[in-house]
Amino acid sequence: MSKLMRAPWLTSLVFIGVICLGAVLTPDVMAQAEEAVPESAYSSEEYVASAEYPVFALNNLWICISAALVFIMHLGFTTLEAGLTQKKNAVNIIFKNVWIVCTGILLYAMWGFNAMYPGDLGTWNGYFSAGSWFGQSLNDVSQTTAAYNAGYTWWGDFIFQAMFAATAATIVSGAVAERVKLPVFMLFSTLLVGFAYPIAGSWKWGKGWLEGMGFYDFAGSSIVHAFGGFAALACVMILGPRLGKYTDSGIKPIVGHSMPLAVIGVFMLWFGWFGFNGGSALSADPKAVSYVFVTTSLAAAAGAVSSIVGSYLLLQKPDVSMALNGILAGLVGITAGADTVGEGSAIIIGAIAGLLVVVAILGFDKIKMDDPVGAVSVHGVCGVWGTVAVGLFSLNPDHSFVTQLIGTLAIGGFAFAFSGVVFGLLKLTLGVRVSAEEETLGLDISEHGMAAYNGFETA
Amino acid sequence: MSKLMRAPWLTSLVFIGVICLGAVLTPDVMAQAEEAVPESAYSSEEYVASAEYPVFALNNLWICISAALVFIMHLGFTTLEAGLTQKKNAVNIIFKNVWIVCTGILLYAMWGFNAMYPGDLGTWNGYFSAGSWFGQSLNDVSQTTAAYNAGYTWWGDFIFQAMFAATAATIVSGAVAERVKLPVFMLFSTLLVGFAYPIAGSWKWGKGWLEGMGFYDFAGSSIVHAFGGFAALACVMILGPRLGKYTDSGIKPIVGHSMPLAVIGVFMLWFGWFGFNGGSALSADPKAVSYVFVTTSLAAAAGAVSSIVGSYLLLQKPDVSMALNGILAGLVGITAGADTVGEGSAIIIGAIAGLLVVVAILGFDKIKMDDPVGAVSVHGVCGVWGTVAVGLFSLNPDHSFVTQLIGTLAIGGFAFAFSGVVFGLLKLTLGVRVSAEEETLGLDISEHGMAAYNGFETA
Amino acid sequence: MSKLMRAPWLTSLVFIGVICLGAVLTPDVMAQAEEAVPESAYSSEEYVASAEYPVFALNNLWICISAALVFIMHLGFTTLEAGLTQKKNAVNIIFKNVWIVCTGILLYAMWGFNAMYPGDLGTWNGYFSAGSWFGQSLNDVSQTTAAYNAGYTWWGDFIFQAMFAATAATIVSGAVAERVKLPVFMLFSTLLVGFAYPIAGSWKWGKGWLEGMGFYDFAGSSIVHAFGGFAALACVMILGPRLGKYTDSGIKPIVGHSMPLAVIGVFMLWFGWFGFNGGSALSADPKAVSYVFVTTSLAAAAGAVSSIVGSYLLLQKPDVSMALNGILAGLVGITAGADTVGEGSAIIIGAIAGLLVVVAILGFDKIKMDDPVGAVSVHGVCGVWGTVAVGLFSLNPDHSFVTQLIGTLAIGGFAFAFSGVVFGLLKLTLGVRVSAEEETLGLDISEHGMAAYNGFETA
Repeated sequence: MSKLMRAPWLTSLVFIGVICLGAVLTPDVMAQAEEAVPESAYSSEEYVASAEYPVFALNNLWICISAALVFIMHLGFTTLEAGLTQKKNAVNIIFKNVWIVCTGILLYAMWGFNAMYPGDLGTWNGYFSAGSWFGQSLNDVSQTTAAYNAGYTWWGDFIFQAMFAATAATIVSGAVAERVKLPVFMLFSTLLVGFAYPIAGSWKWGKGWLEGMGFYDFAGSSIVHAFGGFAALACVMILGPRLGKYTDSGIKPIVGHSMPLAVIGVFMLWFGWFGFNGGSALSADPKAVSYVFVTTSLAAAAGAVSSIVGSYLLLQKPDVSMALNGILAGLVGITAGADTVGEGSAIIIGAIAGLLVVVAILGFDKIKMDDPVGAVSVHGVCGVWGTVAVGLFSLNPDHSFVTQLIGTLAIGGFAFAFSGVVFGLLKLTLGVRVSAEEETLGLDISEHGMAAYNGFETA
Repeated sequence: MSKLMRAPWLTSLVFIGVICLGAVLTPDVMAQAEEAVPESAYSSEEYVASAEYPVFALNNLWICISAALVFIMHLGFTTLEAGLTQKKNAVNIIFKNVWIVCTGILLYAMWGFNAMYPGDLGTWNGYFSAGSWFGQSLNDVSQTTAAYNAGYTWWGDFIFQAMFAATAATIVSGAVAERVKLPVFMLFSTLLVGFAYPIAGSWKWGKGWLEGMGFYDFAGSSIVHAFGGFAALACVMILGPRLGKYTDSGIKPIVGHSMPLAVIGVFMLWFGWFGFNGGSALSADPKAVSYVFVTTSLAAAAGAVSSIVGSYLLLQKPDVSMALNGILAGLVGITAGADTVGEGSAIIIGAIAGLLVVVAILGFDKIKMDDPVGAVSVHGVCGVWGTVAVGLFSLNPDHSFVTQLIGTLAIGGFAFAFSGVVFGLLKLTLGVRVSAEEETLGLDISEHGMAAYNGFETA
Repeated sequence: MSKLMRAPWLTSLVFIGVICLGAVLTPDVMAQAEEAVPESAYSSEEYVASAEYPVFALNNLWICISAALVFIMHLGFTTLEAGLTQKKNAVNIIFKNVWIVCTGILLYAMWGFNAMYPGDLGTWNGYFSAGSWFGQSLNDVSQTTAAYNAGYTWWGDFIFQAMFAATAATIVSGAVAERVKLPVFMLFSTLLVGFAYPIAGSWKWGKGWLEGMGFYDFAGSSIVHAFGGFAALACVMILGPRLGKYTDSGIKPIVGHSMPLAVIGVFMLWFGWFGFNGGSALSADPKAVSYVFVTTSLAAAAGAVSSIVGSYLLLQKPDVSMALNGILAGLVGITAGADTVGEGSAIIIGAIAGLLVVVAILGFDKIKMDDPVGAVSVHGVCGVWGTVAVGLFSLNPDHSFVTQLIGTLAIGGFAFAFSGVVFGLLKLTLGVRVSAEEETLGLDISEHGMAAYNGFETA
C-alpha cells in the first residue's frame, strides 16, 4: 500500500504546477511568427572577430564544462547515499535524487536564478527578491558577450548556478533517507531548492547584505553546504531516528549496503568538485583555476588521511566509510577559501575537517541524531569550519573571522529555521514519516513497488 | 554449449578482417624510411603565433573534449542496459557494448568517416558514397588548421564523429538483449555501424539530399537516435519476445537486476550529452554552447518530471525506471533543435517526450513488442518527435514541419529496412536467436561461460 | 582480529608523519600578518590584456582539465580491481586506492614534484635529486605566466603530475590484492609513490640521463606503466599466490565478483586516458591534442578486438575480462608514442598489445605468478612493448629501438629492484602477508571489520 496513494493530490499538484508554470512563463514558445528574422544561437561574425572574443569564449567554455562537472556530482550524491544506506531503500534514494536535480533545474529557471541574482533591481533590499522566468531572447545580444560578464554568457551563468542549486536539497536527501515519506519530501525539497536556497544565496552572491559586510565564501562552504547541512539537521530532528537504531542496549550500526557504490559516489564528487570550485573562479584565469585545483585536491587528500588516522584511533580499525567522508569533509572545508588560503593552509584546513567529521559523526550518534550518511557532519559542520577557516588562514587581510562566523551562522540558521518551520508544518499536516511496517519492509517495495536488485538472494 | 562454437568461422572472419583491413589500408605504417623529415604532431611556430590560432585551438579543444564526453555515453549505455535486464545476461551486454564501441571506431576509420563526409568527391550523388581509410599524413598541414575547418582539425572531426557512430548500434543492443545470438549480433552491429550509419548520416551531415531539402537535425535526433531506434524495432520484430514475457494470463514484467547500475547509466548519458549536443555547435562559440547546455538540461529535466507524472497517473506508483527513461526521452527529443528552439519550447519538447516515452513503452508491451530497455520508445519514438518538433518550435522560419517529417521518416525508414533485410537474412541463414535452454540459463553462462556476479547467492 | 592492531605504531607513524610534514613545510601558513598586501589568486589585469594570455590560458585550462581526467582514472582502477577480485576483499581494495591517491598527492607536494623536476638545480646529476615542499607564493608572478612554461602555471604543472604519480602505486595494488597486509602495503605504497617514482621519472621528464640519451616516452608507457607493472611483479614474487589458486590438479580460476564494476573501471580509465595522453601534449595545440585522441582511441579499440580474437582462439569463448584487459593493453601500448606514430601504426601497436596481454596473463598463470587483475601483464608487459614500439613505428627518425629498450629496461628494472628490496625487507621484518585464516575469511572482515555488501546472501 503506497503512501503516495494517500496524498496523490499533493504530488500531482506539484507535478502539474511545475509543467504549467513552464508553459505559462515562456513567452518565446510559438513566438516564431511574431518575431523578425531571429538571430541564430551563434555569435555574430563581427563578435567572433573582435579582440575580446578569444578570452571570452574560453572563459565561457570553462563555465559550461564546470556546469557539466557539477552536474555529475548528482550522480556522486546518488550513489554515495544509496551505497551508505540499506539495500531495501536504494530505489527510493535514486528516485529522490532524480527528482531533485530535475525539479531543481526547472525551478531555478522559473524563479530561482532571478531571485538569487536580482542585479540592479530597484526593489532589491539585500534580503529578499522576487524571482521570475530566466529566459532571454536569442536576439538579446547584450547577454551573450563580455558586456554581460567577462566570464560567461547569460546562459552559461544560469546553467552553472542551476547545477549548484539542486545540490543543497540533495544533501538533505541523504540525512532523511530510509524513513521519510516520498511525496512530502518531494514537496519539501521543491520549496527548499526553489525558494529558500536563492534567498540565502542572494545575501552574498546576489550582492545582498552579507556581501556588503565583507563576508567571503568562494564556492559555497556556507551558501551550499552549510545551508544543506543545517536544513538536514532540522529535518533529522523532526523526523527522528530509524527504527532500531538507538536501543536500550546501545547504538546499533545500520551498515550501508554497497561500499563500491559509495566509492563511486565519492570519487565522482571529487571529480565534480573540480568544476564546483574551479568554475567558481568564474573565468579560465590560469592562475586562479590551477591554484584552486591544487588547494581543492590537497584539502581532500588531507581530509582522508586525517579521517583515517582519527577513526583508527577512535575505532581501532581502518574504516572505509570514514575515509570516504574524510575526502568530502576536506572538499567542503576548502570550498570557502580555495582561492585565498595558502597551499599548506589548504592541507591544514582539510586535515582538521577530516578530524571534525569523524568526531561529529560519532557525536551526533551519541546524542541520537540519526543521519544515515553523515550529511550534517560533512556538509553542516565542515561547511561552517571551512567558512570560518577563511577568517583564520586567508592571505587577504580584509577577511575577518567575526564576519565569517556571522555569515555562516546566518546562512546555516536560516536554512535550519526555514526547514524547521516548513518540515514541521508538513509533519503536523501530512505527516513526514512512513509507517513502521513500511520502514521495516523498505521504501522500495512500500512506496515504489519495486526492488533495487533482482535476482539476488536477500540476506 | 556455446553458440559461438557453432559459428566460429563467422566470428573469426569478422575479427581477422577488421585487423587485416587496418594493416592493409594504412600507408603510413613503417613509412618512416621513405618520408622526408616529418612534421611533428605539433603545430608550427608560425601557426601558433597567427591571429586565428587562439580561437581555432579553443574550438578544436572543445570538439576533442566533446568526443571524450560522447565516449563516456558508451559506459552509460552499458550500465543502463545491464541494469534494466536480468543478472544472468550482464556479461553478455557488457561484451556487446565493448565490441560495438571498439569495432565502431575502427570501422569508422577504415570506411565510415569518408563515406559519411565525402566532401567534394566528384562521384558523390547525395545518396551514397564509397568510404575509405581516413588517415592523414602529419605533414598535411591543410588538415590541421582553420583552413580545413574553423572549428577543428581533421582528427578532431574524425574522433568526434567516430564516437557518435558507435551510438546507433549500441541503441539496438539494448532492444535485442537477453535472447540474441552473440556472433550474429556482432556481425549485424558491425554492418550497421560500419555501412548503414554513414549512408543515412551523409544525407544530411555529408551535404546529401536531405541537406539540399533544408532538413534540420542539429545533433542527431534522427541521424543517430531514430536511426538506432528503428533499426532496433526491426530487430525486435524479427527476434520475437523473451520467453515467458507474454503469457496467456497477461504481460509478465521482467524487472531489471540493478537500479543503481541503471541510474549510473542515465546520469552518465546526460553528462555525455553535454558533449553530444554541446559539441555539435562544432565550435566553442559562447552563445551557442551555453544555449545548447541550457536547452539540453531543461528538456532532460522536463522529460523526467513529465514521465514521473505520466507513469504515476497510469501505473499508480512513482516508477524509477520511467523517471530514468524520461530523462533520456527529453535528451533525445531536444537533440534535433537544441540550438534553434526557445528555452520554454525546450521544456515543452522535453515534457512531451517524457509522456510519449511512457505511452510508447506501455504501448509496445501491449502489442507484444518486447524491448527490454525501452530503446525503441526512447530513441525511435522520441527521435522522431524531436525532429518534427523543430518544425513546430524552431525560431528559424526556414525550418518546416513537412521537411522535418520527410527527413526523419527517410532516416528511420532506411534504418528499419536495412535492419529488416540484413537481420532477416541472418535469421534465415545463421539464426538470430539462442535456444530456449540457453535463454533460460542466461547468456552469460551459455555464451561466455562466466557469471557477471560471483559470491552472491542467486534468487 | 585485525592485523592492523599488530602494527599500530607503524600505521600511526606514517599517518602522523604525513600530516606533520605538511604543517612544518608550509611557510605560508598563518603568514598573513607578515606579508605585504598579497596578490590575489587571479592574474593581473595587465597580464589578462597581454597578447600571450589567450593561448596561455587555454593551454593551462587543458592541463587542469586533464588533471581532473587523470584523477578519475583512480576511480577506474578502484572499480576495476574490486570487480576482478572477490567480494570479500572489496572494502580492502577501495581503502587501499583511497589511501594511495590521497597520500600520493600529499607526498608529491611535500617531496616528489621538486624531486622529479629539479629544474636547473646545481646539485642535479641526472640520476637523483632531493625533493622539497612544492609551494609557491601567490606573489611569485613568474610561476603563473608563460614565463614559467608556455603551457601551464606552476600549479597546473603540479596538479597534472601529482595525479600521474599516484597511478604507479595503484597498479601494484591490484597485483597484491586479496592477501597483502594492509599497513605494510600502506607503508610500501607510500615509499613507492613518494620516493621511487620521482627518481625514475626524473631520468626522462626531469631532463636526467635518459633524456640525454634521446629516450622517448610521450605519456609514460615506461615511466608510469612499466614502472608500476615491474614493481608489481617484484611484489607478486615475494608475496606468493593466493591460497588455493595453484593446486596439484591445476590452476583454479578465482573469478572476479562483479563484471559491471570491472567495465565501469575500464571505461573510466579510457575516459581518463584522454587526459593522461591528451594532456601530455602539455598544451592545447590543436594538431597534437586531436592526433593523440585519435591514436589513443584506435589503439584501445584494436587492443580489445585482438584480445577478443586471441582469447577466443585460446580459450574457445568470448571472454569479457580479456576484452577489458585488451582495451587497457592498447591504451598502455600507445602511451609512449601517441604523438609520434602513424594512425595505422597505432592500430597495429594496440592490436599487438591486445595479443600480448592475453598471452602474458595466461603465461604468468602457467608459471604460478598470481596477479589477480593482470596488472603485470597490462602495465608491465604492454608498457615495455609500447616503449620499444616507438623505436619501430615512430615517424621521427631520431627515435631508436635500442635507446627505447635501454630506457624501458632501466625504468622497469629500477622499479623491480626497489620494490624487491623494500618489499623484501618488509617481509623479513613485519611480514607482508595476512594469515591463512584472514585470507580465507577475506580482508574486509579481518582487516576492516566490515563487509563491502550488506543485505545480500553470500554464496
